[in-house]
Amino acid sequence: MIFSSMLIEDAVAEFSKLPGIGKKTALRMVLHLLRTERTEVDGFTQAITAMKHGITFCKQCHNVSDTDICAVCVSSSRDKSQVCVVENIRDVIAIETTQQYNGLYHVLGGILSPLDGIGPDQINIASLQDRISKQPDIREVIMALNPTLEGDTTVYYISKQLAAFPVRITAIARGISFGGELEYADEMTLARSIAKRLPIDNYVNINTL
Amino acid sequence: MIFSSMLIEDAVAEFSKLPGIGKKTALRMVLHLLRTERTEVDGFTQAITAMKHGITFCKQCHNVSDTDICAVCVSSSRDKSQVCVVENIRDVIAIETTQQYNGLYHVLGGILSPLDGIGPDQINIASLQDRISKQPDIREVIMALNPTLEGDTTVYYISKQLAAFPVRITAIARGISFGGELEYADEMTLARSIAKRLPIDNYVNINTL
Repeated sequence: MIFSSMLIEDAVAEFSKLPGIGKKTALRMVLHLLRTERTEVDGFTQAITAMKHGITFCKQCHNVSDTDICAVCVSSSRDKSQVCVVENIRDVIAIETTQQYNGLYHVLGGILSPLDGIGPDQINIASLQDRISKQPDIREVIMALNPTLEGDTTVYYISKQLAAFPVRITAIARGISFGGELEYADEMTLARSIAKRLPIDNYVNINTL
Repeated sequence: MIFSSMLIEDAVAEFSKLPGIGKKTALRMVLHLLRTERTEVDGFTQAITAMKHGITFCKQCHNVSDTDICAVCVSSSRDKSQVCVVENIRDVIAIETTQQYNGLYHVLGGILSPLDGIGPDQINIASLQDRISKQPDIREVIMALNPTLEGDTTVYYISKQLAAFPVRITAIARGISFGGELEYADEMTLARSIAKRLPIDNYVNINTL
């Protein structure tokens, strides 16, 4: 036993389970907590416990939430005519971080993947249809799924399911990444970005969108 | 609020306080814990709480310990004739990791630094004298402090204090690091490693020491 203390050994082992944390980093964190005031350490563990036990999912959009309906869904400043469909909560965070989108979300909780046994009933598609049928405010559904085979399949499936509703269905743009170089782009992306070229006035400034 | 959940926001803020953890890494850890079983997350927080509330310091060597006297001090397989004096518990861990030392420790809890107001009474020097006077088993005191001005001062001070006791006082070797290159070593280190040169038979294999 290298640490002469099982308590430290256990704490290091627990920290090592976190993603990207090796034994050395775990030890550094544990030694940091040893030096920290006890009330602060209790604050750390209590925040984690409160999150794990208190967190719930928004009954409307399935995003993580502290309450039955999440802060985005209840906010009076959000545009309720737009619903952005994403795979998971990390995608919500990524889009919120851009501060360029002011509509609502719908978190599928996965994408269609028959090989993994994930069909339409395993993800939140029915509740999206239900939501659109009950909320005539919704005018546009923006599909923001990862550009993979499964992502495209899911976009296609959902757009078929929503065909009967009077909503516009769009998908996020694909093309060369900002700062990317043409010569290193994959063929699919480059071919598509030429086929789906835009008039130059749509092109210049994201803030004018 | 980017996370649509104060619970997540709080947990991310708490993780961000750990050394070397930025907001992005903190979020990755929180999302990991969100996906983890609740019992496992409780295991994580409980290990930290148990450590912070249960940890104590060994009454003999001042190392961290789960009990009044630490596992190193009570171990029957350790050589009780040697006491290695170190600055802090991280140094104990570093030496234990080498698996080359089988004696006991004495953790000073700091080094002499008059400018920072740390004198002999602020660190565990008196208890070292006390320990040596009461335990005639102790034959050698190995000073393993950092090679800084304060470290050297502390080594000098302690060796004076222990002069009256029938113990051999030694200090860890200094010289060129294993794998280091002469041409990049600082002058002090290189000059000293020449002045303190060793007979070649001491030189070859650390395991023969």
